[in-house]
Amino acid sequence: MKGFFVTFEGIEGSGKTTQINLFANFLEKNNYDYLITREPGGTFIGDQIRAILLNPKNIKMDPITEIFLYTASRVQHLAELIKPALAAGKIVVCDRFLDSTLAYQGYGRGISINFIEELNRLILDGVEPDLTFLLDIPPEIGVPRARMVKNDSCSLNGDRIERENMDFHQRVRMGYLRIAAENPERIKIINGNRPADEINKLISAHFEEVYAKILTNK
Amino acid sequence: MKGFFVTFEGIEGSGKTTQINLFANFLEKNNYDYLITREPGGTFIGDQIRAILLNPKNIKMDPITEIFLYTASRVQHLAELIKPALAAGKIVVCDRFLDSTLAYQGYGRGISINFIEELNRLILDGVEPDLTFLLDIPPEIGVPRARMVKNDSCSLNGDRIERENMDFHQRVRMGYLRIAAENPERIKIINGNRPADEINKLISAHFEEVYAKILTNK
Repeated sequence: MKGFFVTFEGIEGSGKTTQINLFANFLEKNNYDYLITREPGGTFIGDQIRAILLNPKNIKMDPITEIFLYTASRVQHLAELIKPALAAGKIVVCDRFLDSTLAYQGYGRGISINFIEELNRLILDGVEPDLTFLLDIPPEIGVPRARMVKNDSCSLNGDRIERENMDFHQRVRMGYLRIAAENPERIKIINGNRPADEINKLISAHFEEVYAKILTNK
Repeated sequence: MKGFFVTFEGIEGSGKTTQINLFANFLEKNNYDYLITREPGGTFIGDQIRAILLNPKNIKMDPITEIFLYTASRVQHLAELIKPALAAGKIVVCDRFLDSTLAYQGYGRGISINFIEELNRLILDGVEPDLTFLLDIPPEIGVPRARMVKNDSCSLNGDRIERENMDFHQRVRMGYLRIAAENPERIKIINGNRPADEINKLISAHFEEVYAKILTNK
């Protein structure tokens, strides 16, 4: 049996990390065989790439350099972790995937959507999320929350992405909503401005519904 | 006036570093306005990418991850250093460029040459070397030389690329010769198994000849 690929998307401070942790508890309790991972990163090599991408000292990074780094991290992630886990029948839960690249580099930075889709087509090899949760929240609420929550060394004033101005985060949010509108079958929009336990219940219920449907059709 | 772009290519231990240093002395003495740089690396961000590419711990690196990392480094290098220097009329001398990707990832690792050319077409934006010196040497001579010469911390037993087996380096050498055969106008093959000062004289003389021709035609 082929596994099931779930991704979580949303702007900074939308609550992805909290929700992934709660969803992992749900999967654990219900004896699902699962794997939690994230982009950029997820592998030993990917984490080294992630460090370059998030380092606030790398202010001169060209937007095309950035997209090639995200793509490099994704290729490694697919080869080393995601594909083998799916082949083993696991539920793979990933914090950010293709939609992040479209939303941040495409809609946020203005890189051609066609260019991004072309690059991704070259590397995805047919692997696409079965289900995506988009945690939607206004940047005026999410971004300050992200800056307050983190206290690791490099993010006292936010990492390289969080430091972008509010217009950028607004374009990313709108980009996400547009991608969701174009993929209504795959992407479930969730209002991220609700209590965490309510959101978790919505997510778990929707997952069970879609997963059951897919199992029936396989 | 637009600048002039010179690249040095060759397998490990072919003498590129020595020859670039000697060529820089020649340019310096003759009052040329020049810039020496290298790939992967050449920029603050590129050097971080270089560290990932050469780290012997990264043995699980997927060949497509590798090529995206080289491409990311190249994009940054072009945007931050090469294009501005050429626009300022400088002679840019680069240790490895596009031909290395074709030789190592294409002919060496077996990644489709079309795929590499397609990726590079997306990023080069018309910038191509005006002149390339290929230092040709058998891997049986070059590779042990590269392993002996270096004594920085990570390369006691060679970096990630140098550790490849002899067949790999043989394929890379043949790849280079094939690329040279397809680009006889641009690429000058130099026998790397001659005394360093003789090679330097050949290189300086050929550079002056080609540079004079290009100046006349501009």
